[in-house]
Amino acid sequence: MASVQKSNPGNYFEDFHVGMEIIHATPQTLTEGDVALYRAMTGNRFAQYSSAEFAKAAGMPGLCIDPLHAFHVVFGKSVPDISLNAVANLGYADGRFFLPVMPGDTLNTVSEVIGIKENSNGKTGVVWVRTTGFNQRGETVMSFVRWVMVNKFEMDNPTPEPVVPDLPEVVPAIELVGHPDMKAWDMALAGSPYTFDDYAVGEKINHVDGMTVEEAEHQIATRLYQNTAKVHFDAHGQKDSRFGKRLIYGGVVISIARSLAFNGLANAGQMLAINAGSHVSPLFAGDTIYAWSEVLDKAELSDTCGALRLRLVAVKDQDPGAFAYKDDAGKYAAGVLLDFDYWAAIPKR
Amino acid sequence: MASVQKSNPGNYFEDFHVGMEIIHATPQTLTEGDVALYRAMTGNRFAQYSSAEFAKAAGMPGLCIDPLHAFHVVFGKSVPDISLNAVANLGYADGRFFLPVMPGDTLNTVSEVIGIKENSNGKTGVVWVRTTGFNQRGETVMSFVRWVMVNKFEMDNPTPEPVVPDLPEVVPAIELVGHPDMKAWDMALAGSPYTFDDYAVGEKINHVDGMTVEEAEHQIATRLYQNTAKVHFDAHGQKDSRFGKRLIYGGVVISIARSLAFNGLANAGQMLAINAGSHVSPLFAGDTIYAWSEVLDKAELSDTCGALRLRLVAVKDQDPGAFAYKDDAGKYAAGVLLDFDYWAAIPKR
Amino acid sequence: MASVQKSNPGNYFEDFHVGMEIIHATPQTLTEGDVALYRAMTGNRFAQYSSAEFAKAAGMPGLCIDPLHAFHVVFGKSVPDISLNAVANLGYADGRFFLPVMPGDTLNTVSEVIGIKENSNGKTGVVWVRTTGFNQRGETVMSFVRWVMVNKFEMDNPTPEPVVPDLPEVVPAIELVGHPDMKAWDMALAGSPYTFDDYAVGEKINHVDGMTVEEAEHQIATRLYQNTAKVHFDAHGQKDSRFGKRLIYGGVVISIARSLAFNGLANAGQMLAINAGSHVSPLFAGDTIYAWSEVLDKAELSDTCGALRLRLVAVKDQDPGAFAYKDDAGKYAAGVLLDFDYWAAIPKR
Repeated sequence: MASVQKSNPGNYFEDFHVGMEIIHATPQTLTEGDVALYRAMTGNRFAQYSSAEFAKAAGMPGLCIDPLHAFHVVFGKSVPDISLNAVANLGYADGRFFLPVMPGDTLNTVSEVIGIKENSNGKTGVVWVRTTGFNQRGETVMSFVRWVMVNKFEMDNPTPEPVVPDLPEVVPAIELVGHPDMKAWDMALAGSPYTFDDYAVGEKINHVDGMTVEEAEHQIATRLYQNTAKVHFDAHGQKDSRFGKRLIYGGVVISIARSLAFNGLANAGQMLAINAGSHVSPLFAGDTIYAWSEVLDKAELSDTCGALRLRLVAVKDQDPGAFAYKDDAGKYAAGVLLDFDYWAAIPKR
Repeated sequence: MASVQKSNPGNYFEDFHVGMEIIHATPQTLTEGDVALYRAMTGNRFAQYSSAEFAKAAGMPGLCIDPLHAFHVVFGKSVPDISLNAVANLGYADGRFFLPVMPGDTLNTVSEVIGIKENSNGKTGVVWVRTTGFNQRGETVMSFVRWVMVNKFEMDNPTPEPVVPDLPEVVPAIELVGHPDMKAWDMALAGSPYTFDDYAVGEKINHVDGMTVEEAEHQIATRLYQNTAKVHFDAHGQKDSRFGKRLIYGGVVISIARSLAFNGLANAGQMLAINAGSHVSPLFAGDTIYAWSEVLDKAELSDTCGALRLRLVAVKDQDPGAFAYKDDAGKYAAGVLLDFDYWAAIPKR
Repeated sequence: MASVQKSNPGNYFEDFHVGMEIIHATPQTLTEGDVALYRAMTGNRFAQYSSAEFAKAAGMPGLCIDPLHAFHVVFGKSVPDISLNAVANLGYADGRFFLPVMPGDTLNTVSEVIGIKENSNGKTGVVWVRTTGFNQRGETVMSFVRWVMVNKFEMDNPTPEPVVPDLPEVVPAIELVGHPDMKAWDMALAGSPYTFDDYAVGEKINHVDGMTVEEAEHQIATRLYQNTAKVHFDAHGQKDSRFGKRLIYGGVVISIARSLAFNGLANAGQMLAINAGSHVSPLFAGDTIYAWSEVLDKAELSDTCGALRLRLVAVKDQDPGAFAYKDDAGKYAAGVLLDFDYWAAIPKR
């Protein structure tokens, strides 16, 4: 008596409809153990996520989970329901961090389908979801939109009415929350003398350092977040895939690039919002990640704190000081891995 | 002045006698750090070992150490005294989990020799031990029997009177303890709608997903448990061994196979007893583990909770949907890694 | 508008002057997560750093951070300011551990330049620094001297007056602090019956076991300590370097060699002082570390506790029972990785 139906087949394009709400499984309690592992896997050195004393002096409730770490956890929960049969992870938008996640907090995750559009080939479609993370008190800690290309189960199934959500290009600075009072910020301990006032719109920053990613490392990090997408773990199954090997979870690229960005942006460690993001090309084990940033905008948030809108670009196996990005036709240069647009809090002088 | 005698030479077959009690070294305090690492190394997603809130709502005292994690720790302590000179780890039986291990608890380990039998070649013998784990209050948290083939120190040493212990083929369901009141179990958060009532004896479940194991990963996991068996760590020393390379600790296989079993058995995350287990063939770095399960038996434990007796079979580099196991002559099929028989708690409808 | 100047270029030889004090960035709170990770990365089994119950019974305040772990963290903080442009890490001296570091403590780090000497080639110079680690109460937890060879920025820059500090060859036993009352030390749980009284000056101990280090492992460990030296992480950048590949952080070698030394020195787990140390040759991923120790001296510290002065020698890919060290001309034998001289506390009989 054989049965396969008790395992999760994932959702296909036909399974999604606008307005559908999905409660994701495996709520996760984040602890000091997760903080140590996130540091060990990414090289995170931002002072407010490294030292409890620094964090408190900088107006935070204590040593919080890095918002980007919490983002990977919330994202990971959504994978079995949203992207198990995904062909591609197309983009992020309107990501907002509302409340700090403290060690001991438990994250629950829910997604709502907000858009759906079949592709003209009739084989795949795009699904937009808003995924929201809640803590154990039911408070919303974060929310973001992502869209993925998902396989249809049967090409002959009817084509749904397309619904394409209207997404903001950028989270308005006026809506940024969760930035602390930064008047007691210690620049020496944070590792940089550069404040909000020192950065200019249009300025590019070379983050210099590189980090090579091994198979063991991305697998450990991805399991830490309970992201279960098969392409990251199954070397045997991937042998016959398009690339012939395991793909590294894009969140690994974001977190390592952000950790590299410490070198040049050490005071801008707190992510306040994700405006946009796309994984331009895949990363494989043995590749080395480098990163550069561009200041896209600036906004005053309070007397002590400003926000930088930053484009974080990750490249592989090349000097980030070349600032590789797009050509005039909008085509990404070779070796660009990630194009990520976000707001970060930074102290004023 | 050179001296080697202060290092541990391990015990040989002649060193064991029935009734001998061995207090194992390096008691270990397990913390939230261990919980995070166990998740990151194995992919553990069972909700009661992932979320403190879920655990409490499901009748447990909080976020406990996964019993299988605690098993590896207790097992690991016994290695320097029991299996440092072992040729093979032959089997497990009569494993019982009595009390939850909470973060902050310290595990102490003692083994008693309960059987001994020299092999006819005169070079090796089999030793049966019952290993028991205690917490810092002296309470027994678990107990299991394992037997190993151990080298004799001198072939000419006398052959002891054989004592072969009478071991139960299965832990009787009536003796299973530690299962919580599962009336408030949340299926959506746990990740599966299938309860005790939905599983049938004889049913086989394909767990679908695969996980490739790297050298770094099994070494980190095995050190986490303080298991020191040389074959897992010493590539230089293993070059001239039978396989020419490092062997992966069998506990790594059990834990990864169990984590894969989430996909199809998400509500059956709490191991209550180990009935039997054997490591059918060795796993090496780069191999991909898949798993399938068979329901061997069912037992009602309370109004809210039942037990499934499950056979967990791990295979390597092949589709687990083929349900590879044994041929008619009882010989295991190629690629079978693990044959593991256990009881798990599962909510009733 | 491109700018690289906001990233840290590191200090060159010309940037250092005697008396200069440098406050290092990224204070780090150490937690139970760090303890679990340190165990998982190094194989640490010393009972007082494994079990909270054992530690308390052995006169310690609880489960502390292994002093060697704290040393790597304090060292790591100093890297961006002291050794980012270093050619070689030449040695350690006068390392003292004053206070235990408990989970929850935050380490801050300051270095003072105490010596400076240009090399005759005019291209490099030696810089001596005393690095001190403080906890969140401002108490000094450790202090050590290290010296590094650093590149000059411009060969034509003037040569400073040389200042070579007077360093003790050994930390005097009378100045060792922090050793607990060891009267209730449990030898069975610690894993060895050998006390202070059983070790003789001149005795050599073969630690037998080997541990192979993978790229993922040394990268994870080095990030755990927030040590950012590029040579450990950047495979792409290292392709054109002298060795053509990543170098493993020397602290990884010290910690693994010390963990291997458990087998023969299980009761001597608490490091009290670092007398001297040098990294004799580099370790690369795939190499296997073995270790042996020599008792250099003994000192009575109290009625219950003595100290062993130990030379810890790490070798690679060879039998540590050969006790490879130096030839008559003082030249190290092939395969010697580490020559490390320290004091450890050990119970008296």
